[in-house]
Amino acid sequence: MAVHAESANLAKSLFLANIDPRLQLDVLRQVESPRLVACDTMNFWIESRRSDLLELLKRVDVLLVNDGEARQLTEQSNLVKAARWILERGPKFVVIKKGEHGAFMFTSSSVFFAPAFPLEDVFDPTGAGDSFAGGFMGYLARTGKLDEAHFRRAVVYGSTMGSFAVERFSFQRLIEIGQAEIRDRLDDFRRLVAFEEELPA
Amino acid sequence: MAVHAESANLAKSLFLANIDPRLQLDVLRQVESPRLVACDTMNFWIESRRSDLLELLKRVDVLLVNDGEARQLTEQSNLVKAARWILERGPKFVVIKKGEHGAFMFTSSSVFFAPAFPLEDVFDPTGAGDSFAGGFMGYLARTGKLDEAHFRRAVVYGSTMGSFAVERFSFQRLIEIGQAEIRDRLDDFRRLVAFEEELPA
Repeated sequence: MAVHAESANLAKSLFLANIDPRLQLDVLRQVESPRLVACDTMNFWIESRRSDLLELLKRVDVLLVNDGEARQLTEQSNLVKAARWILERGPKFVVIKKGEHGAFMFTSSSVFFAPAFPLEDVFDPTGAGDSFAGGFMGYLARTGKLDEAHFRRAVVYGSTMGSFAVERFSFQRLIEIGQAEIRDRLDDFRRLVAFEEELPA
Repeated sequence: MAVHAESANLAKSLFLANIDPRLQLDVLRQVESPRLVACDTMNFWIESRRSDLLELLKRVDVLLVNDGEARQLTEQSNLVKAARWILERGPKFVVIKKGEHGAFMFTSSSVFFAPAFPLEDVFDPTGAGDSFAGGFMGYLARTGKLDEAHFRRAVVYGSTMGSFAVERFSFQRLIEIGQAEIRDRLDDFRRLVAFEEELPA
């Protein structure tokens, strides 16, 4: 797989979505000095391309997987142990998504958790994970800041975009919404987890 | 079931733990003007004592149940809808516990979520729900304040006590810990969900 567009070769933020790890490695080699590299994977590659996947892990900053994939990859049922196993193999950040049960982000020295937004009607969960990845990468690419505080907010942006994605079929909701809806939902997320004496308005 | 001790009749905070709703109602009648009444229940009573349980719900401020019980009671698979169903039948606060996936608290105008603390070793989950209830009621009884901010913090205290309970068999861990350990874990909870630009130390 060749990266044709010159702009793609110069991408600062690279998300290697779920394909054969050999192709992910091939794409990665063609991009010149990206500042941020994240990847996804799935059960099929974990089983059939394990050594390539481990090679890829050495070269990415972030692994984004769901809880089942994290457990399968690491052979650890406990997610804290699974995250540590992954962190020892390359990535500085491991995001473990649990669908309706929210998402963890682990670093070697911290854990962050963002709930999934509690929706009354989930129309179609297809694409929630990719929408999460889009919100996550988009926030980091836009701000250009790669400290932990920004990664935490990236997880919340990811959860926000995932929550919109499931409200309608396909990407219908994502093309409807604008910055105002996104800001409102971010505020809802803030209220959802706030437990200081003074609650946010 | 008679409440014998005079002090019990005068209790300001009453937690009606999981027994036959007829007995819960009987106990409730014997307590003089409690400020706060919460109750728990289970699948067996939801099925066999439904009308008594609905009678009880009219008279409690808080229902604390797990997600399975909330769904069974309300016949709603969606927890937001299940919570609304319950809120329309008496309680001002509905706490829905999801075990390792955390706990929601719903009011008619808000939702709060507290994750379960991510532990590397869960020794024995028995008693986590009752420890949660103890932390929750204990915090409210101690502070004496019954506004939403305090209820939210009560959920976090509940999650904290539940997280200690599962670290050892039975109540062993609960008798070991003191205020310092509890404060440390509350700080860990704060860091776990923080996503503002300035992260707490």
